[in-house]
Amino acid sequence: MPKKKVKMARERGHRQKASRKLTEMGQDVVNDIKNVCPPKLKIPSRSTSNIIYDEVHRYFVLGPRWGVRSAGSMKQVKKFAQLLCTADFAKELIKQGKFATLREMYYTAEGWEVGPFYDQGESDGIIEDLEAAFGLKREDLGLTPEEDGAAVYGKLVVNEDGVVIDATKAGRAGYTIPPTIDDVEFLKCKAKRVIAVETMGMYHRLVQEQAWKKFDSLIVGLKGQAARATRRFLKRANEELGLPVYLNCDGDPFGFHIAMVIISGSAKLAYINHELAVPDAKYLGVTASDIVNYKLPTDKLRELDIARLKQLQKDPRYNTKFWQSEIKKMLELGRKAEQQAFAKYGLAYVVKEYMPAKLKEVEEQEFLGR
Amino acid sequence: MPKKKVKMARERGHRQKASRKLTEMGQDVVNDIKNVCPPKLKIPSRSTSNIIYDEVHRYFVLGPRWGVRSAGSMKQVKKFAQLLCTADFAKELIKQGKFATLREMYYTAEGWEVGPFYDQGESDGIIEDLEAAFGLKREDLGLTPEEDGAAVYGKLVVNEDGVVIDATKAGRAGYTIPPTIDDVEFLKCKAKRVIAVETMGMYHRLVQEQAWKKFDSLIVGLKGQAARATRRFLKRANEELGLPVYLNCDGDPFGFHIAMVIISGSAKLAYINHELAVPDAKYLGVTASDIVNYKLPTDKLRELDIARLKQLQKDPRYNTKFWQSEIKKMLELGRKAEQQAFAKYGLAYVVKEYMPAKLKEVEEQEFLGR
Repeated sequence: MPKKKVKMARERGHRQKASRKLTEMGQDVVNDIKNVCPPKLKIPSRSTSNIIYDEVHRYFVLGPRWGVRSAGSMKQVKKFAQLLCTADFAKELIKQGKFATLREMYYTAEGWEVGPFYDQGESDGIIEDLEAAFGLKREDLGLTPEEDGAAVYGKLVVNEDGVVIDATKAGRAGYTIPPTIDDVEFLKCKAKRVIAVETMGMYHRLVQEQAWKKFDSLIVGLKGQAARATRRFLKRANEELGLPVYLNCDGDPFGFHIAMVIISGSAKLAYINHELAVPDAKYLGVTASDIVNYKLPTDKLRELDIARLKQLQKDPRYNTKFWQSEIKKMLELGRKAEQQAFAKYGLAYVVKEYMPAKLKEVEEQEFLGR
Repeated sequence: MPKKKVKMARERGHRQKASRKLTEMGQDVVNDIKNVCPPKLKIPSRSTSNIIYDEVHRYFVLGPRWGVRSAGSMKQVKKFAQLLCTADFAKELIKQGKFATLREMYYTAEGWEVGPFYDQGESDGIIEDLEAAFGLKREDLGLTPEEDGAAVYGKLVVNEDGVVIDATKAGRAGYTIPPTIDDVEFLKCKAKRVIAVETMGMYHRLVQEQAWKKFDSLIVGLKGQAARATRRFLKRANEELGLPVYLNCDGDPFGFHIAMVIISGSAKLAYINHELAVPDAKYLGVTASDIVNYKLPTDKLRELDIARLKQLQKDPRYNTKFWQSEIKKMLELGRKAEQQAFAKYGLAYVVKEYMPAKLKEVEEQEFLGR
């Protein structure tokens, strides 16, 4: 297929599906009214009791329970009307090829006849209802978070709305993943893997030491907890480009969990994890074993760290030999260490010594199917 | 001068000056030792009582007081040795054309004979000593903050280490200002002004509505309180490119202060404001008058907002007719409003109606010299 068409197909795929779902919903409402029935919408329940860890897919999903939002109930009629206005706003965004932030969506309602939202929590909730009902991301409905995604550096060329961007030529700070990442077409990729790092300090270290060249890798700077756009980018890199994804985080419970949310998704977003989780991504960050083996500078675990580690021990996402053993070891050591602690051995050490050793270890295990 | 040379000159300007200062300091130490005097360094005092608002330059500066760090004092000798090691590390970074984060600097000291720092506060303090002693930014010493600067979109072409980047062709999320912005050469700029906005939501709105074209403007997304690299970029755009800088922030005391720190610098960085402050930048954000004139959706001022506004009334940086009248009016209204509140009138309103009116007002005042 010619490149232009591939891109059109991608955009159509997501936006058109959203547009179709919205149209169907509207038709159902019209039909209900014609049949003198109160219009209604089935919405999967997002309550904690309906969030299930799916052992096969290896991420959280919603269970079988759902509720009905109906215009026939006095308690629900205003919310139902707001939901229809929101759907109408989304339809218009898709039609015009535009995007709005959740905050703009909230303020837009100030002009509605049905009355504004009480707060942004209310408008966000309605958008989540639509996402869950359709199984689509809000980005597909034209609604984006405020923040951009991560920075990417390496041999990847993308097409954004006809603008071709080479991620080795967008500056030292790299190519920034936009909130609208699903519109971006991957034109060319010569990298063989993705190394995503928690801090921008480590990102700039890897770019400066040319780790992207040395490891044939895309370097991704997560900026802490990964934004939705970043998670979507990593999933697409993994599935469309077939690249293994490695996650290099601080050796503490918060670093572990930054990696795990990328791998297995969060419970809160159970209704959309099938679009975001990267279950085959591998942890390549600082471990308790590294602290010992590399004699790293450490900090004492705070009470909060200890409590968090104990939570992780019971979390189904950490139910593997590797995680159980590393968490136990960290609790025994009573210490944690950051990625940048390798600077003790010189700035280049992490690229010259540490990463090659870790990559070899993880890729050998993968090769052996462990 | 050919372009390549301009760039070399820029790099040399900053880094070579830093290198020269470090060399001089080292020579002084050697001379002192040869003369059997304890080596010492004069460091301007950064204590609150030595921070002065300079009415002429219109930003905070350090006053005339200074202290002496001496190897002849038992209390100071370890700190003096750490300062020399830090200076040595910086010299090496400059020589190799490398950069390290403050965090890496802190960890590097774990390998020093003189012993590591107690915490990062200690190593950061020593870096600030060097900045203040030399009147140079730590970036010139090869030490950068972790975070990148703002996003830029518009008709600007830059040269980063031989890579040419067009800020209309770096993707929707724009060109990211790197921590090493002083190494970046401005090759070509067709914009006539800079509009910097507080939130990324507003940034994406302006990019989407092509405000950069409509207003012949560079659009800068500050991401809240502006990073040092962003402030340096705005100063360079103002001074080197001769562009007026307009700051569009939320209409609340925190929005006001995001703008004011760009304009007049912070007290904390008094020792380096001459490299960061943009005293001619103009506030173009939401005002108390806008809240009334545009009937904007508002939130009630919290107690914290009221206390903060009362602080600003007494702050010398806000001692102008404009600020005093707007702060008073906001206190009387008891309400605040965000940039994105204009979405009440449709997504394009801010670009079609609000900004043209505000720009006209501010530029007319400038023309009349008010």
